[in-house]
Amino acid sequence: MDTTTLYQHSTLADLTAGLFSGTLPVSQLLQHGNTGIGTGDGLDGELIILDGIVYQVTSSGKVNKLQPTDKVPFATVHFANYDKVATYSGLDKDQTLERISKEKPWQNIFYSFALEGTFKYLKVRAVCKQEKPYSTLLEASKEQAIFVAQNISGKMIGHYSPKLYHGVAVGGFHYHFISDDHSFGGHVLDFQINQAELGLQAFETFQEHFPVDSKDFMDFDYNNLDNIAEQINSAEK
Amino acid sequence: MDTTTLYQHSTLADLTAGLFSGTLPVSQLLQHGNTGIGTGDGLDGELIILDGIVYQVTSSGKVNKLQPTDKVPFATVHFANYDKVATYSGLDKDQTLERISKEKPWQNIFYSFALEGTFKYLKVRAVCKQEKPYSTLLEASKEQAIFVAQNISGKMIGHYSPKLYHGVAVGGFHYHFISDDHSFGGHVLDFQINQAELGLQAFETFQEHFPVDSKDFMDFDYNNLDNIAEQINSAEK
Repeated sequence: MDTTTLYQHSTLADLTAGLFSGTLPVSQLLQHGNTGIGTGDGLDGELIILDGIVYQVTSSGKVNKLQPTDKVPFATVHFANYDKVATYSGLDKDQTLERISKEKPWQNIFYSFALEGTFKYLKVRAVCKQEKPYSTLLEASKEQAIFVAQNISGKMIGHYSPKLYHGVAVGGFHYHFISDDHSFGGHVLDFQINQAELGLQAFETFQEHFPVDSKDFMDFDYNNLDNIAEQINSAEK
Repeated sequence: MDTTTLYQHSTLADLTAGLFSGTLPVSQLLQHGNTGIGTGDGLDGELIILDGIVYQVTSSGKVNKLQPTDKVPFATVHFANYDKVATYSGLDKDQTLERISKEKPWQNIFYSFALEGTFKYLKVRAVCKQEKPYSTLLEASKEQAIFVAQNISGKMIGHYSPKLYHGVAVGGFHYHFISDDHSFGGHVLDFQINQAELGLQAFETFQEHFPVDSKDFMDFDYNNLDNIAEQINSAEK
């Protein structure tokens, strides 16, 4: 089991372009990792992958499990092997990300973090399933559902990507949350930690897999897509 | 043997930053491919990898073979499995690249091309081995050696990278040449084909490997590096 590789199917740029159709079965995705994040077919909700189970938080707030034959348009996974490095108490989002980014000299490589514990406050979003013809990620993100929880225990899983890869991934941090009882989660917008344990895992290799069987992807003209980097920032942060 | 993956060690951005020290032994590089391009330790010449042999064209014009323990700072390799798709006659550089880019609808994925045959004219360069403290790729490329040949037979090997990956690689085409008698070669600047056979090979996966054991790389502050994209264009095209 290779714990030094981060595997990604498709790119944030492809989502930005509106390529929302699922292109990789969950069964194949899980061959490359048991832990990670992604989105569902047709931009149907936020995925968080834990222990080889793909949880889908839909815009109704319901949490489903995806089946092996379900296809995803975008996901980033790895085999979990976190080092416990710290316990954080009382930090808000900005303080937390600042602290994480200073734990290790890893600014130029991909790494994953897991933050497990109790949160005083958590604000998440879930994108809504889109109908064809698809618009862009930026348009779709305008109709996202937002959920807030207080005093909730659960796990945040995410990745750090070097700036050079903004477009391929989200440069900086991108992370999702699921509660311990699997009833609440999504793409994290804001939070305050009560107490949480931080795990970090570095990757030596970033493996980017292209949806080569998707004619929509292969034929897409990215020259028609302005400001991919800015659109990702608006849609994902 | 995986013929659908393109493996790259380090990035063009790292070279642009002046990270010229070898960080991966040839023996490890060749586990990921028998064909490709790269540069030597200290930016010592242009590498072209054929049939598992790493040829090094130095700035003196001499062609060496690297040994398994020699380390390279940057290289991109794959296991060759080209489809012969066309024979080109009489085309110049721009016409050739235009034709190659229209052979397949592969503008959004990485692919390799091999162009084997006779060339009326060929202009190549080889960068010069640098001494520490290293400057940037752009500075180093100003002291490159240029060689010209006429009526020469040999092989061009290169990669196409989607624009999104400019910085990680050279967006568009990046290719090196070696003559059939292994006495002449380098990073190709210009050429005219007499007659040459084109082989193409698509990649489903791009595997980026980071020089994680290099403190210079891990500690480098890319925020101090302006216009990586433009510097690569000036140094490599």
